[in-house]
Amino acid sequence: MTKVVCPGSFDPVTNGHLDIIERAARLFDEVVVAVLVNESKQGLFKVAERQDLLGQATGHLPNVSVSSFDGLLVDFCTANGISAIVKGLRAVTDFDYELQMAQMNSSLTQVDTVFIPTTPAYSFLASSLVKEVAKHGGDVSGLVPDFVLAKLKAKFV
Amino acid sequence: MTKVVCPGSFDPVTNGHLDIIERAARLFDEVVVAVLVNESKQGLFKVAERQDLLGQATGHLPNVSVSSFDGLLVDFCTANGISAIVKGLRAVTDFDYELQMAQMNSSLTQVDTVFIPTTPAYSFLASSLVKEVAKHGGDVSGLVPDFVLAKLKAKFV
Amino acid sequence: MTKVVCPGSFDPVTNGHLDIIERAARLFDEVVVAVLVNESKQGLFKVAERQDLLGQATGHLPNVSVSSFDGLLVDFCTANGISAIVKGLRAVTDFDYELQMAQMNSSLTQVDTVFIPTTPAYSFLASSLVKEVAKHGGDVSGLVPDFVLAKLKAKFV
Amino acid sequence: MTKVVCPGSFDPVTNGHLDIIERAARLFDEVVVAVLVNESKQGLFKVAERQDLLGQATGHLPNVSVSSFDGLLVDFCTANGISAIVKGLRAVTDFDYELQMAQMNSSLTQVDTVFIPTTPAYSFLASSLVKEVAKHGGDVSGLVPDFVLAKLKAKFV
Amino acid sequence: MTKVVCPGSFDPVTNGHLDIIERAARLFDEVVVAVLVNESKQGLFKVAERQDLLGQATGHLPNVSVSSFDGLLVDFCTANGISAIVKGLRAVTDFDYELQMAQMNSSLTQVDTVFIPTTPAYSFLASSLVKEVAKHGGDVSGLVPDFVLAKLKAKFV
Amino acid sequence: MTKVVCPGSFDPVTNGHLDIIERAARLFDEVVVAVLVNESKQGLFKVAERQDLLGQATGHLPNVSVSSFDGLLVDFCTANGISAIVKGLRAVTDFDYELQMAQMNSSLTQVDTVFIPTTPAYSFLASSLVKEVAKHGGDVSGLVPDFVLAKLKAKFV
Repeated sequence: MTKVVCPGSFDPVTNGHLDIIERAARLFDEVVVAVLVNESKQGLFKVAERQDLLGQATGHLPNVSVSSFDGLLVDFCTANGISAIVKGLRAVTDFDYELQMAQMNSSLTQVDTVFIPTTPAYSFLASSLVKEVAKHGGDVSGLVPDFVLAKLKAKFV
Repeated sequence: MTKVVCPGSFDPVTNGHLDIIERAARLFDEVVVAVLVNESKQGLFKVAERQDLLGQATGHLPNVSVSSFDGLLVDFCTANGISAIVKGLRAVTDFDYELQMAQMNSSLTQVDTVFIPTTPAYSFLASSLVKEVAKHGGDVSGLVPDFVLAKLKAKFV
Repeated sequence: MTKVVCPGSFDPVTNGHLDIIERAARLFDEVVVAVLVNESKQGLFKVAERQDLLGQATGHLPNVSVSSFDGLLVDFCTANGISAIVKGLRAVTDFDYELQMAQMNSSLTQVDTVFIPTTPAYSFLASSLVKEVAKHGGDVSGLVPDFVLAKLKAKFV
Repeated sequence: MTKVVCPGSFDPVTNGHLDIIERAARLFDEVVVAVLVNESKQGLFKVAERQDLLGQATGHLPNVSVSSFDGLLVDFCTANGISAIVKGLRAVTDFDYELQMAQMNSSLTQVDTVFIPTTPAYSFLASSLVKEVAKHGGDVSGLVPDFVLAKLKAKFV
Repeated sequence: MTKVVCPGSFDPVTNGHLDIIERAARLFDEVVVAVLVNESKQGLFKVAERQDLLGQATGHLPNVSVSSFDGLLVDFCTANGISAIVKGLRAVTDFDYELQMAQMNSSLTQVDTVFIPTTPAYSFLASSLVKEVAKHGGDVSGLVPDFVLAKLKAKFV
Repeated sequence: MTKVVCPGSFDPVTNGHLDIIERAARLFDEVVVAVLVNESKQGLFKVAERQDLLGQATGHLPNVSVSSFDGLLVDFCTANGISAIVKGLRAVTDFDYELQMAQMNSSLTQVDTVFIPTTPAYSFLASSLVKEVAKHGGDVSGLVPDFVLAKLKAKFV
C-alpha cells in the first residue's frame, strides 16, 4: 500500500491543484493533501479555511484526506507512513527548484518525489495569479471551484 | 489598425526597453508604453518621472504614446482598444513567467501577447542591475539614454 | 501596412498551426503562410499538397495567403516586402533555438521575429507526433482539421 | 492495484535506469520494463539481449517484469492494463520533450505520466555516452552493472 | 599569474562551496573567497563568523585566501588585481541569472566570469536549504564540514 | 602552470569561437585548440583546412596552439598534460548537454570543465548557421574572420 502527500499552500485551492490531486488519487492507494503552515507569511485564507475548502473540493475522492504541517515535509512523511511526495509541474522554472527540493528530501530520508505534469489547459494557473485577478474584479470562474469563487469574492468586497 | 501596449516598471527606461519599443513601433500602427503603478513597492523614480523620461526617450516615434495603469493589464487593454501586449524577452527564466502571464491574460480576454527578442547586445540589461551599478558609482553610460544617466547620477549624489 | 510570414514545414497543418495563423491574422494586415521546401528531406505530404491543405484551412481568413520558399527566409522576406517573421512557441527548448535563428536573421537584415505563445491546450502538438500516432492507427481527431484527418488516414492505409 | 510501465531503449541498461526502476518498484504494485522496438534504428544490443540484461538486473525485484513493444506506447498500456508511464528525468531539455510526449499520450488516452528525478550522482548517465566511452576503451565500471560491463567489452574487442 | 575570486554569501559554507573552491584552486594561481556584505539582509552568521568558517574550511589550500566586499564585485576585482570571477553552477535557473550578471560585469570592465559545474552529488546543496533543515532539527551532516555542523546546532538550540 | 583545451568541430572557426579562445588565453597559461576528428560525419572543410584556418586566426596569441584529436577527449587531455576543458556557452539547451558531458568527463578522470559565456553580440553564432547562410549567398562578414569569408565563398561558387 502506497501513501503519498500532495503538499502546498493552497491559498486557495484551484482547478489546477484538483487536477493533480485527482491524478494522484487514481495512481496511489492513499493521498494526504497537506497545507504548509508558514507563520512568517500571512495568507489570504487562514489555514483552517484552506483545509475546509480542500475538504469540499476533494469530497468525491474516497482515498483523499486533508491535513496540515509545519517544520520539515520529510518529518511529516516519516511520522505519517508516507513514502512519496507528489508535485504538479507546470514549467521549467518550477522544475529546477522542485528538483533541488526533491534531491534534498531524498538525501535526508528515503522519501521519493514524483512529478505529475498539469493538464495543458491549466498550465498557467497559480493561486497568486488567481488572487491578483480576483482582487481587481477580474473573472476567475473556470479557474477555481464554484464555492471557492464565492469565498474569493467575499474577501475582496 | 492594431494598437498594442508595452507594459513595464520602467524605473528607469533603459536602452533595452527602447530597443523593444522601437521594434514595436515599426510593426504596429499604434504603441502605448504603460507604466505599471505598484503602490506597495516604492521605486527609485516616481511614476510621473518615469513617464516623463519615457516621453523624452520616445519623442522621435510619432506612433508611440506614454501612459500608466494600475489594476489588471487586460482591463487597461479593453478600456483603450488595445489588442495585444508586447513583451521583450531576454532569457529562458523570463520566458516561463511571461508565458504563464500571457496564458492567464488570454484566458481572461481576447488580448494576445507577442514576444520580441531583445538585441543580443542588450540581453543582460535590467533596470534593477543598472540602478545597483549606478548606486555604487559604476559607469552605466551606453546602457541608458544620456538624459536618464544624468537623472540617475542626481539620485545617488 | 505590416506584412508578416508564418514559415514552417506544415507536413501537415495542425490545429496548433492554425491557432498561430489566426492570431497573426488578427494582429497584422497581411499574413503569408510559407512552406519551407527542403529538398534533402522527404516529407509525408508533397509541398503542393501541404499548400493545398493550408489553403483549405485558412480559406476563412481574407488577409492570409499561402506560398512556399527555399533558400534563406530573410531573402524571401526582402523579395516580398515582409517586415516580420511570426513563430509559435510551445516550450523552452523551442525558444532557445528560435531565439538563435531570430538573432541571426536580425543580424542579416532588418527583419524582426515575433513569438506568439500557443494556446495551452495545443502545447504538445507537433506534426511529427501527429504523424507517428496516425501511422499506428491512433486517433488524432481534434488535433488536425477534419479534411487533414481524412488525408492522413489515406496515407497510412 | 496500480501497474506502470518504464519504457526505453535500454541499449544497454545502466545504473541510472536501475535507480528509476527500483524507485518505481517501491511506489507501485507492478512495474513492466518495456524495451522499445525501433526497426529503423540499429542498436548496439539486439532487443532480446537488452531484455535479457534487464532481466538479470531486475531479478531481485519481485514486482518487476520485462517486456518489449512497438507501435504506440499508449496502445501497449491499454492492452496490458497499465495506468501510468514512469520516466526518469535528468535535465531540463529532457523535461520539455518528455512533457510534450506526456501531454500527447494523455490526450490520446487516460494514461498518466509520472516523472521521477534521477539520483544526482547518475544525472549525467546516458546509454549513448556509456557506449561512446566503452568504444574508445574508457572505464565505465560503476556506471553499469558488472555483467553489462562484460558484455560491453565483448562488443568492442 | 591569474588571480580569481569566488564570491558568495557563504552563510554558512557548505561542502558544495568547498567543491568549487577546490576546483578553482587547482586551476588558478590564486583564489580569493570573498563574502558579500549585504547590510539590508541579516544573515544567520555574522560576516566575521562566515569568514572564520571559510578560513578553517580552506586551511589546507595554500593558494586560497578569504576576504569580504561590499559595493560592486567588479570594483573589488579591479582593486585587487583579480581577472576573473568563478561561479559554481547547479541548475538552469542559476544559469540564466548568472549569465546576466556575467554579461553586465563584462560590459563594465574586462573581468571575465567562468562557470564550474558542481559535482552531481552536491547539485541540490544551498545554504538556505541547509539552514531550513537544521532549524527543524534535520540531519545535515555530510552537507557541511563538521565544525560548521557544530556551529549550526549551536545557533538553533 | 595550467594547460587547457578548447575542443570543437570548428568547421569553420567563427568570431564566436575566437571570442572564447581569446578569453581562455587571458585566463590560462597554455591553450590547445583541438579539432574533433569525426570520421562518420563529412564536414565542409577538411580537418587540415580547419586547423590551418584556426592557426591563422590565433596567430596573435602566443600561448595558443592548434591540434586535433579522435577518440575520447579525456584521453587527449591525459596524454597532453591538460587539466581542464574550456567550453563557450550560448544558451540553456547548450548548457544541459554540456553539463552532462562535463560530469561524465569528470567521472572518468580528474579533468574539470569550465564554461565561459559568449559575448552577447555573438550569442546566435554557430558554424552550421554560418554555412547555411553562406551557401545561399547571404552575407556573413562580421561573423567570421575575413580570410574565412574568402574560403567560404570559394566553397559555394
